[in-house]
Amino acid sequence: MTEEITAALLKFRDERDWAQFHNPKDLALALSIESAELLELFLWKNAEDANVDKIKEELADVFSYALLLAEKYNLDVKQIILDKIKLNDTKYPVGKAKGTAKKYNEL
Amino acid sequence: MTEEITAALLKFRDERDWAQFHNPKDLALALSIESAELLELFLWKNAEDANVDKIKEELADVFSYALLLAEKYNLDVKQIILDKIKLNDTKYPVGKAKGTAKKYNEL
Amino acid sequence: MTEEITAALLKFRDERDWAQFHNPKDLALALSIESAELLELFLWKNAEDANVDKIKEELADVFSYALLLAEKYNLDVKQIILDKIKLNDTKYPVGKAKGTAKKYNEL
Amino acid sequence: MTEEITAALLKFRDERDWAQFHNPKDLALALSIESAELLELFLWKNAEDANVDKIKEELADVFSYALLLAEKYNLDVKQIILDKIKLNDTKYPVGKAKGTAKKYNEL
Repeated sequence: MTEEITAALLKFRDERDWAQFHNPKDLALALSIESAELLELFLWKNAEDANVDKIKEELADVFSYALLLAEKYNLDVKQIILDKIKLNDTKYPVGKAKGTAKKYNEL
Repeated sequence: MTEEITAALLKFRDERDWAQFHNPKDLALALSIESAELLELFLWKNAEDANVDKIKEELADVFSYALLLAEKYNLDVKQIILDKIKLNDTKYPVGKAKGTAKKYNEL
Repeated sequence: MTEEITAALLKFRDERDWAQFHNPKDLALALSIESAELLELFLWKNAEDANVDKIKEELADVFSYALLLAEKYNLDVKQIILDKIKLNDTKYPVGKAKGTAKKYNEL
Repeated sequence: MTEEITAALLKFRDERDWAQFHNPKDLALALSIESAELLELFLWKNAEDANVDKIKEELADVFSYALLLAEKYNLDVKQIILDKIKLNDTKYPVGKAKGTAKKYNEL
């Protein structure tokens, strides 16, 4: 699935000759900025009052820059997530982490 | 593809009884925080000096919270990205946007 | 007041020969990262459960990078804030903005 | 100095009856969002190409929310910064940290 989306993102980028701007550092900036725009939809509000249409747009931007970053490093998105879940399994063992929101270094 | 990953993320969450913490507002906070941890890997550095193993981990965290947010609103990740690309096509027409990094409201 | 603090920050920086890393772009990255570390103190929590000692530390980091950025551009901190309040006075006129958290472009 | 600015910020807030929205968690969100808006001024650019007039505005917003947070907890801004410099003095001893941008846990 990500291959098809990434291809669409690269096509959009290359039609505009934007590869020259898309170094990994600036892509990481863009991802942070889009995450903050998503966060802004919840500012001064209860979660249920956020505008879902705008959430779709900002979340799409977050996924887009995350996919472009993954592409830069030739990462398999599915694999890095499954690897991280395995790592988190040892950082947050069920026996200690169940029902608490504490960080792993405070468990 | 996202269905399978999302299922793994929900399993990890539910084994720890964490659904109680995962309201959309806090998920958006978590996404912003993980994006900043990814950004930190580039701080005071040229892009090529960032640690790729750590990038994998932080990018995996970004994808994970983005997927959990998408799941909260029952969003089809592929669809929202393709919709956003279509929208950006009108905000950044090739004729005006080619070769420039200006924002759409400055084109 | 800011002169004295900024002098202490510059002394700390120069003892470590860090001016070479402190270009404005990376200072802006650092400020974003520290803001996210502050935000993390509130993650999965009600506001009143955040750790105040840690808030002091992270908020100090935010102020420090903000002051170092102001110093880069020779900005008078008091002046830019008073100027911005004046600008916000026209973006958020009391008659329209009273009691609502709407953004200025939605008022 | 901060007393006078904080007083101006509280006056602005109270004329609009906005204290009801300004809990510390949402103030921390606002601070993160404003930091990202500042960061956006450097996106896809070299540091020297950022717009200084806009930097003034976004940096003023960052200071404003940082001061409002400090006010919530009755913090003495000067004191928390000087305390943090002292703490950083032990995390980043000159002998180890001079000329390197490594994080304290990698020194």
